[in-house]
Amino acid sequence: MKIVVTGGAGFIASHIIDYLLREGHQVLSLDNFTLGTRDHFKHHLNNPNFKFIEMDVSQEERVNQAFKEFKPECVFHMAANSDIGAGSFDAKVDLKNTFGTTVAVLEAMKKNDAKQIIFPSTSAIYGQTEGAIAENSGPLMPQSNYGAAKLAAEGFIFAFAHVNNIRVWIFRFPNVCGPRGTHGVFINFLRFLKADPTQITVAQDGKQAKPYIYVLDLVDAIMLGWQKSQNQYNVFNIGNAPLVSVNEILASLLKEKGLGEIKIHYTGNPAWPGDVVTYTFDDSKIRVLGYKPKFNSKEATDKTAYELVHNPDAYIAVYRD
Amino acid sequence: MKIVVTGGAGFIASHIIDYLLREGHQVLSLDNFTLGTRDHFKHHLNNPNFKFIEMDVSQEERVNQAFKEFKPECVFHMAANSDIGAGSFDAKVDLKNTFGTTVAVLEAMKKNDAKQIIFPSTSAIYGQTEGAIAENSGPLMPQSNYGAAKLAAEGFIFAFAHVNNIRVWIFRFPNVCGPRGTHGVFINFLRFLKADPTQITVAQDGKQAKPYIYVLDLVDAIMLGWQKSQNQYNVFNIGNAPLVSVNEILASLLKEKGLGEIKIHYTGNPAWPGDVVTYTFDDSKIRVLGYKPKFNSKEATDKTAYELVHNPDAYIAVYRD
Repeated sequence: MKIVVTGGAGFIASHIIDYLLREGHQVLSLDNFTLGTRDHFKHHLNNPNFKFIEMDVSQEERVNQAFKEFKPECVFHMAANSDIGAGSFDAKVDLKNTFGTTVAVLEAMKKNDAKQIIFPSTSAIYGQTEGAIAENSGPLMPQSNYGAAKLAAEGFIFAFAHVNNIRVWIFRFPNVCGPRGTHGVFINFLRFLKADPTQITVAQDGKQAKPYIYVLDLVDAIMLGWQKSQNQYNVFNIGNAPLVSVNEILASLLKEKGLGEIKIHYTGNPAWPGDVVTYTFDDSKIRVLGYKPKFNSKEATDKTAYELVHNPDAYIAVYRD
Repeated sequence: MKIVVTGGAGFIASHIIDYLLREGHQVLSLDNFTLGTRDHFKHHLNNPNFKFIEMDVSQEERVNQAFKEFKPECVFHMAANSDIGAGSFDAKVDLKNTFGTTVAVLEAMKKNDAKQIIFPSTSAIYGQTEGAIAENSGPLMPQSNYGAAKLAAEGFIFAFAHVNNIRVWIFRFPNVCGPRGTHGVFINFLRFLKADPTQITVAQDGKQAKPYIYVLDLVDAIMLGWQKSQNQYNVFNIGNAPLVSVNEILASLLKEKGLGEIKIHYTGNPAWPGDVVTYTFDDSKIRVLGYKPKFNSKEATDKTAYELVHNPDAYIAVYRD
């Protein structure tokens, strides 16, 4: 199948490209290297089924031109701002990179008759919640521009899908870790520890806890939903147990680095305005399809800490700098 | 209080201005006459508490400048595309006039320390539903660009409010009728009947039915929620019984015009792609505050039909043309 993967140089999208090419699909990847890097797909540059065009996916005319030439049946629209903190003071980051790219992709799909879209959404569309959140839970009251832009994108995806007979798979992700991660708590901690291995600053009281998924488990979950669920609108929350706290992640990194006890300063404040510090997904809907991650949340974070410390080459250029 | 009303030349906003000035507030109205008309506020032009600036509210810099000079405490952000059909083929209409104006207003509020926003939302954010929809109902799967843009606007309102300590009142409207309506089923039918009083074309089978509210009842509901509910996020669905069908509205207009039986052609299709033809609100949350419309849905549509036929001067220039 001819598939466009936007944001193909990024963390999760590059693993999706690996999967799709392995399955024999033809992939056109679009990216402007805002967060991603060419290293993430350089192993495919000699593959005749792989094509890359450098572009800002919020530029409607360029996206449309690429679709016109490639004629995709399906789009994995992974281009987005994935750094929640970066958008917390300036709405333009999420407006352009998450929402603007989505509108451009939808217009190109409409004009060029692409009939399937896979979209990565997030727990952040719900805002502060109590209890486990399911796909049908309401209200949706995001408290970050990141969550608002993902919700806005979902809204237009549903509307375009209804009018243009497009099929939609939306996966609402938990926190994602593993190879090629470009930013986030692991990389922040390692940067701080490199600068000063005797002390570190941690948001809130460090007990804020979230579900984590290892990126390859996430890709398997996406492919499972895409292949096994064939309604017009297929929405899945992807959870993982147990919740892992920021303190536990720090402890894993300290252990792998052999650093023992260090001085920890707790800020008492969220890492960024609008961070939802704790949430739980009800993911029974995708579990019915057979979703069963190889690594639970704690194993995923421990594995990531181990790999980041002992095998940094498998990770991201940003961190190696 | 100093209050900005965006879209102040429009149908509902102009009634809000009447109310606010009557209560002694200072009002700055912004509008570019996309759907509204100067006739809707000309009776206030000599009122020292009323000021009007003609502008496109999606232009961030101009909105910011107006806020900087006027220093509002509160914004009734009523500027929006209110013609669902108009945006059904071109997403840009709702993207610019509903979503773009909201982002511009939020940025201006953030920069100029305005701490209250009242926003008109819609049943269309829910998409196709079963049973009565409450404020907390999910999922939110709009099927029109109109609904998607309102949902997108809600998302960014919540996020800006969280980070900038803004208080929010969101009212999800049913269909609205009454004086100064600029478009919709009543005006369409009257235009068709003027052109040919012997026959008319009706979408679907004409039995599609929605709740209607008389615009002055709606303004009372908004003011009730704004004054009596003082949480940070105040969200209300505004319903009205009974559901009134398109056939009933046509019958009311024919009766007022003394036309008797005419030939009716049913299209079998929605009036526009993405129209949600039937829905019901659970409005118990606002009823607890004392919401009790003077006119039920049927009385509201009958009264509108009567007034449009017998007192068109109270209505809109668009129709009088």
